[in-house]
Amino acid sequence: MKIAIDAMGGDHAPEQIVAGALEAAVAYPDTTLILVGDEARLRALVKEWPANVTLHHAGEVIESDDEPAKAVRRKKDASMVVAGRLVKEKQADAMISAGNTGALMATGLLVVGRLPGIERPAIASMIPTVDGAGFLALDLGANMDATPEQLCQYAVMGSIYCRQVNGIERPRVGLLNVGTEAMKGNEAVKAAHGLIGRAPLNFVGNVESRDVMFGNCDVLVCDGFVGNVFLKTLEGTAAAIFSMLKAELAKDLSGKLAGAVLKPRLRQFKNKLDYSEYGGAPLLGLAGVVIKAHGSSDATALKNAVRQARQALMNGLVDALAQGI
Amino acid sequence: MKIAIDAMGGDHAPEQIVAGALEAAVAYPDTTLILVGDEARLRALVKEWPANVTLHHAGEVIESDDEPAKAVRRKKDASMVVAGRLVKEKQADAMISAGNTGALMATGLLVVGRLPGIERPAIASMIPTVDGAGFLALDLGANMDATPEQLCQYAVMGSIYCRQVNGIERPRVGLLNVGTEAMKGNEAVKAAHGLIGRAPLNFVGNVESRDVMFGNCDVLVCDGFVGNVFLKTLEGTAAAIFSMLKAELAKDLSGKLAGAVLKPRLRQFKNKLDYSEYGGAPLLGLAGVVIKAHGSSDATALKNAVRQARQALMNGLVDALAQGI
Repeated sequence: MKIAIDAMGGDHAPEQIVAGALEAAVAYPDTTLILVGDEARLRALVKEWPANVTLHHAGEVIESDDEPAKAVRRKKDASMVVAGRLVKEKQADAMISAGNTGALMATGLLVVGRLPGIERPAIASMIPTVDGAGFLALDLGANMDATPEQLCQYAVMGSIYCRQVNGIERPRVGLLNVGTEAMKGNEAVKAAHGLIGRAPLNFVGNVESRDVMFGNCDVLVCDGFVGNVFLKTLEGTAAAIFSMLKAELAKDLSGKLAGAVLKPRLRQFKNKLDYSEYGGAPLLGLAGVVIKAHGSSDATALKNAVRQARQALMNGLVDALAQGI
Repeated sequence: MKIAIDAMGGDHAPEQIVAGALEAAVAYPDTTLILVGDEARLRALVKEWPANVTLHHAGEVIESDDEPAKAVRRKKDASMVVAGRLVKEKQADAMISAGNTGALMATGLLVVGRLPGIERPAIASMIPTVDGAGFLALDLGANMDATPEQLCQYAVMGSIYCRQVNGIERPRVGLLNVGTEAMKGNEAVKAAHGLIGRAPLNFVGNVESRDVMFGNCDVLVCDGFVGNVFLKTLEGTAAAIFSMLKAELAKDLSGKLAGAVLKPRLRQFKNKLDYSEYGGAPLLGLAGVVIKAHGSSDATALKNAVRQARQALMNGLVDALAQGI
């Protein structure tokens, strides 16, 4: 199993990316990790490389403010693009990048290629629930205006991912909506309700964002605009509550005492809410495994993304998606 | 100043609605409150009515599962519809209802009427921020598919509301989006960005839902689908965090001790996050002041809605909206 890693993408590249790759190399000795980037710079970071890590030179880097499609077309020797080419040419089975999300989507579309039958790939990610099980939400921002047919494709892809990678036999598929009744929603969602209902899925109907963190579905389907707003509202609300709680605990002596007891628990608890713990976000609908790691990925996050890419490969995700569509 | 109150609408009607009206009658002796509903039933609830509360009989009730427009057309003697008619016929200056939201919107459109120039009224509500100032978000669910022009009308109406009712001279208007760059978003939002930018508003551009609770705008503009998902994600995330925190504090002795100190603070803190504390949600764009109180309104919430209706009336909200459009 060979996994190409864009060593130059992300806020803490290349140091943390390389550190994560080294951790993953120890944890998964059956896997070869191909670090793609400035070879001289990468080589200088480590004295002794493990046998299952190889370096693959790429002379350019896509920056976070590059215009995605243009950058992918022009910077043919960018680490991200080269990693995508390794997947396309079957020199790698999967790729991981913590770089520019739009550029990774463009690399997926223009370099790796789409699965036949998929109009638009989707960004999927596990979202935490109170019971710790989590659910897969898609699309979280690849495609801003989804048609009902595209929403239905997301439902199929999300369901297959949950079955192949998370091992859930009949994943409960929910459609993100403003009410549970079938006729609720905007025009695209109303039409999608009918399409998903007729697909061979375990469709539980419309679900409300108020309820999803309490675990009422395994796959949450939405367009990329709504999904991105949903994800960022979740992050923002959690951040706001923790910041208010922190201020409350710093107010006086009894608060500080309670805070001393609570602090380690709150940290644990914050980690439980941190969706990057689940690994990266797979780009579903491409002709290869492509994982978007969080831009701020540290070594642990990168290692988790490798674990996730391995699971996708071992469970034959791409073949299952190609057959399921 | 006369405010009509739908005494039969809401989960705790008529008891809590009447109790709230009595509290408001004491707090605001200059205001006449017209309780609309089953007169015999209402009369039996109170021994001595304050001089500034009057009863107005209405023989029917719109139920929470009634089909909105149909119910408003057929149940001409429903308490909600009669309250709307009092506003239309200038026998009341404002109306408040904790009943069926869709039916209240239909009452607004079909009975009270729209302001000239407004295509679709919007539901607006104050959302809490970490600093306690809050911001006005609209639309939160009146209109599922908003055009760029309608989004721009929301921006204008929200800005006028913030100036007239909240006393903010130049309210900062933000457009809810997936990124801050001008070209981000779905087609409707991209077009709205240009329109709002050319309107005579203090437009701060696109804002992300991750940041809004930290107070980066006074008015948040979005379509009713996205707004409703946003609001319910906020509610759901807060509920999920509090439920996880509660479980954490019940786990062992030191947790329980910390919990004993924290409990009253957490309650206070939860109230800070409870947007119903700000009163009800005004329906903006109608030819009268119409306030939607939360379906689960108790006496305090209803009293807050009366306070809000008074503020809107005293500050000439409807005239300002009519002129501003």
